[in-house]
Amino acid sequence: MNGPQQPAPAADFAGWRAHQQGVVEQALSRWVPADSPARLGEAMRYAVLDGGKRLRPLLVLATAEALGGHPGAALRAACAVELIHAYSLVHDDMPCMDNDVLRRGKPTVHVQFGEAQALLAGDALQALAFELLVPGDGSLPAELSARLCRLLAVAAGADGMAGGQAVDLASVGVALDRAALEAMHRRKTGALLQASVTMGAATAAATPQQQADLAEYGACIGLAFQVVDDILDVTADSATLGKTAGKDAAADKPTFVSLMGLAPAQSYADAVLDRAHQALRRCGLQQADHLHALADWVGRRAS
Amino acid sequence: MNGPQQPAPAADFAGWRAHQQGVVEQALSRWVPADSPARLGEAMRYAVLDGGKRLRPLLVLATAEALGGHPGAALRAACAVELIHAYSLVHDDMPCMDNDVLRRGKPTVHVQFGEAQALLAGDALQALAFELLVPGDGSLPAELSARLCRLLAVAAGADGMAGGQAVDLASVGVALDRAALEAMHRRKTGALLQASVTMGAATAAATPQQQADLAEYGACIGLAFQVVDDILDVTADSATLGKTAGKDAAADKPTFVSLMGLAPAQSYADAVLDRAHQALRRCGLQQADHLHALADWVGRRAS
Repeated sequence: MNGPQQPAPAADFAGWRAHQQGVVEQALSRWVPADSPARLGEAMRYAVLDGGKRLRPLLVLATAEALGGHPGAALRAACAVELIHAYSLVHDDMPCMDNDVLRRGKPTVHVQFGEAQALLAGDALQALAFELLVPGDGSLPAELSARLCRLLAVAAGADGMAGGQAVDLASVGVALDRAALEAMHRRKTGALLQASVTMGAATAAATPQQQADLAEYGACIGLAFQVVDDILDVTADSATLGKTAGKDAAADKPTFVSLMGLAPAQSYADAVLDRAHQALRRCGLQQADHLHALADWVGRRAS
Repeated sequence: MNGPQQPAPAADFAGWRAHQQGVVEQALSRWVPADSPARLGEAMRYAVLDGGKRLRPLLVLATAEALGGHPGAALRAACAVELIHAYSLVHDDMPCMDNDVLRRGKPTVHVQFGEAQALLAGDALQALAFELLVPGDGSLPAELSARLCRLLAVAAGADGMAGGQAVDLASVGVALDRAALEAMHRRKTGALLQASVTMGAATAAATPQQQADLAEYGACIGLAFQVVDDILDVTADSATLGKTAGKDAAADKPTFVSLMGLAPAQSYADAVLDRAHQALRRCGLQQADHLHALADWVGRRAS
């Protein structure tokens, strides 16, 4: 299960990131079929390709790399997590949810293909995520496929992403305290970001302590991501974000900024990032540079 | 992998069916969580419990029983297939799809819980299906979990159920010939019914020839199910069906009845059922009574 490891200087992070984004893009293009009937494949590819920072795949790949994980499994896990993320965006943008028309600078899937096709494309992307984790050619050990399926299913389901979205829906106009807000985001965005790290770790032989520390790192990444998201929602414009800015405030949704104020929210993001770095250092990994750099990338991003 | 086999006289089919329906109901009630946040669990249980013929679970269980399959795996596979079926009904009933308000004699999920909650409940049910196939307690062999995940993912996705629904959407008002209509239904309903049989077979040590014959049996069950569905859509009333009757004709959707006429469609259903029985007989199973009876149950049903 131990693949080759290559030196990974922090200065090279931008290059590593661009390279891995290309690898993921190519793999997704190969695995999301164009030939599905009645434009379904077209809608699926539209939802998945040519956009996004690929943060979740990068977390999978960096974790697998740091631990010497199974490269083929890591790439499949990276793409599977991204498919779940992509389907959630398609459904989240629909009129009955956030009713958003702009995503990654393009019309959303339901605007481009109609609501019914968007619904089905999201559904098919979720199924495809699990299909990817169990290749028909036997190229992954069955134990690893099964473990990855479970980690992804739990993160995507009622105790994870879908449950968090339900809480989010129910929280419009409700005065959540910070603990309740964190609990919501731990499910809504945190579960899948954390699963990206734990799935990356599952492709390798991590010790139980390393698994726990990496899970803490992943949880901090998830929380930092959301706090920064809330900050950007009030400080950035739609063109920079590639999606509609200011929509949380417009929808009267509780955010870290509405709860704490802008400057304290930024300090809180910094503190959470520090915890992520500390958790990583406890792992004692030789090659954690890209994981450290990913934490900073999440915490310092402008879009 | 060989569990105990019990005698299964055909005369006892109704009793066997009622018993297994109770087992499935109990298992689903245990595995679909009530405590998911913000009423999501409630919507999921509403979509899944206390309704439905449980045809797909019965196919899984009868196939596993006939081959002496792993009982724990068979029950999980039975429930997983039913969760996929249930989620597809929830999404299919939504206003952007069939816009149906009545299902199994109750208001549909989006009528009862709102569209956003229905969307999320369907999404979470799909994730839960895969979670069920990989129990966290290690009670299933990983090879079997992985194999079941793959069979289910392929049947649910763009080459299966979701793809068939996309073709169905695109076929309104279009003059399909019988081959095109069968190709659509092979995906839309056939893939999951066939997967019920192949997943049941996967829990046991079926020979390649038995697997092929059982796949043919499953394909015939799928086709017969749809032809009878089309017949009932014009001959039964909504109260008997527990859903809106006559909706295919109202929606100008091609059906076997609109294509062939009522009496020829009935003859065709009979011929397909014969093929199902023949395929089963070729398997040379000692205990195929319930599988034969299930075929007749599908072909002769009144709702």
